[in-house]
Amino acid sequence: MELIKDISSMEDCCREKKLKGKKIGFVPTMGALHKGHLSLIQKARDDCDFLVVSIFVNPAQFGPGEDFEEYPRDLSKDTKLCQRQGVDVIFIPLKNKMYPKGFSTWIQVEGKLTSSLEASSRSGHFRGVATIVAKLFNIILPDYSYFGEKDYQQALVLKKMVKELNIDTQIILMPTIREKDGLACSSRNNRLTFEERKAAQVLHESLMLAKREIQNGKDDPSSIISSMVNLIRGKDFAKLDYIAVVNPENLEAVKKIKGKVLIVLAVHIGKIRLIDNMTI
Amino acid sequence: MELIKDISSMEDCCREKKLKGKKIGFVPTMGALHKGHLSLIQKARDDCDFLVVSIFVNPAQFGPGEDFEEYPRDLSKDTKLCQRQGVDVIFIPLKNKMYPKGFSTWIQVEGKLTSSLEASSRSGHFRGVATIVAKLFNIILPDYSYFGEKDYQQALVLKKMVKELNIDTQIILMPTIREKDGLACSSRNNRLTFEERKAAQVLHESLMLAKREIQNGKDDPSSIISSMVNLIRGKDFAKLDYIAVVNPENLEAVKKIKGKVLIVLAVHIGKIRLIDNMTI
Repeated sequence: MELIKDISSMEDCCREKKLKGKKIGFVPTMGALHKGHLSLIQKARDDCDFLVVSIFVNPAQFGPGEDFEEYPRDLSKDTKLCQRQGVDVIFIPLKNKMYPKGFSTWIQVEGKLTSSLEASSRSGHFRGVATIVAKLFNIILPDYSYFGEKDYQQALVLKKMVKELNIDTQIILMPTIREKDGLACSSRNNRLTFEERKAAQVLHESLMLAKREIQNGKDDPSSIISSMVNLIRGKDFAKLDYIAVVNPENLEAVKKIKGKVLIVLAVHIGKIRLIDNMTI
Repeated sequence: MELIKDISSMEDCCREKKLKGKKIGFVPTMGALHKGHLSLIQKARDDCDFLVVSIFVNPAQFGPGEDFEEYPRDLSKDTKLCQRQGVDVIFIPLKNKMYPKGFSTWIQVEGKLTSSLEASSRSGHFRGVATIVAKLFNIILPDYSYFGEKDYQQALVLKKMVKELNIDTQIILMPTIREKDGLACSSRNNRLTFEERKAAQVLHESLMLAKREIQNGKDDPSSIISSMVNLIRGKDFAKLDYIAVVNPENLEAVKKIKGKVLIVLAVHIGKIRLIDNMTI
């Protein structure tokens, strides 16, 4: 396994593989790898000839007052995990090479998709995500790129960007991986205290409650949301950011439940903001 | 020579060439080809193995009230010219395939470069240019892409975009081609009446006047600009939009002339807006 920091070296390496007709797989990450990332890496390893994992904590997708500085970083552990999974290259570009002085080119997916839910709470977040992912796609030229369903809205934004800018990669979306108690794997989970970690179960619990209610025939989103809100309010440390019952295609709010819906939520547990979702 | 309308067919064609190690050259145009375009095509033909010319009048770079509908179109003449120059493929995508319903992904190069000069007069113009050119780059994957110096500001914007988004193409800038009387070749020249066509000489005349004054030792931009303004004011049909004496690297206004400067101007001749520039 190779560790590449330099952007030009990474480009040259991928162009050479491409010319040889190798299928390039790409898993973009912010490091602090967990079981969710590993499931993406395993799938990519199965699908592709040449596998690149990027580790880059992208400042442009963090707003002011968010946890860019505190975001967990553990390169030596990440390196071992990647080695064990048969990753070919870890790409760890420097911040001032990805965003050199005077950088001002941004990709914005406009419209409802990037103005609701996560975007309401994290202004500029998706502009930062779209721009860094497009840059990484241009450097790595992946045939397939892998993302997790936990960041569902992000995946829809990136799929739209790839389609509308005619980027030549196929986005593969993989199911959310969960801890034993149902908590969705996230690099931020490590930052929870013991008590908070227990409280964090409530995201998944509330989704399961919604699932039961829908399966029992409830079709009124506002009633389901209020059951979830009540459950979350009862927990110490937990402070709701948003819950919504939406159409999984376009994330627009659903008025009456029939067919598939997506329930998405964000909850602060102490100082840590967690998100989760479930298609029902 | 092949004529391709379908985006996927164009992508497949270029990917195949790429895999064979062919160097792809690309000249993006809005059609109504003139000697300026032909000089780009000839250079690209010399440099590359496989040469694509796109013809697409890009609605996104025209503002409301601009001449999108009136922009000259002559596909049969363009086709003959390309054939004669040894072009391999003319790519003529449909508007509703390039911008399908709900399209909302835009690339914006922010900052002074896209808020001055052409941008002051044509709001949203460079957002439209950057987005369509990035899309075409993603479809055609050119090793080299060719642009004319007449659209100097556009070239700087695109160079910045390519660098900052890590797009794998090299932008080649070619000198402005002029008619016998000095008027810069432009598809819009054909829309001038006989009298307007004569008046249009004033853009080049005023640049030559500025050149003489600078060569005679004048170093005050405002004095040079007022000589140019006086010359233009004296012409029937001509109405000045802007003149500026700027640094050719970043298009920032120059306070005192020493070393290379770029003089840029835009003038309405009747209903037609023309631009020109000269490095002195």
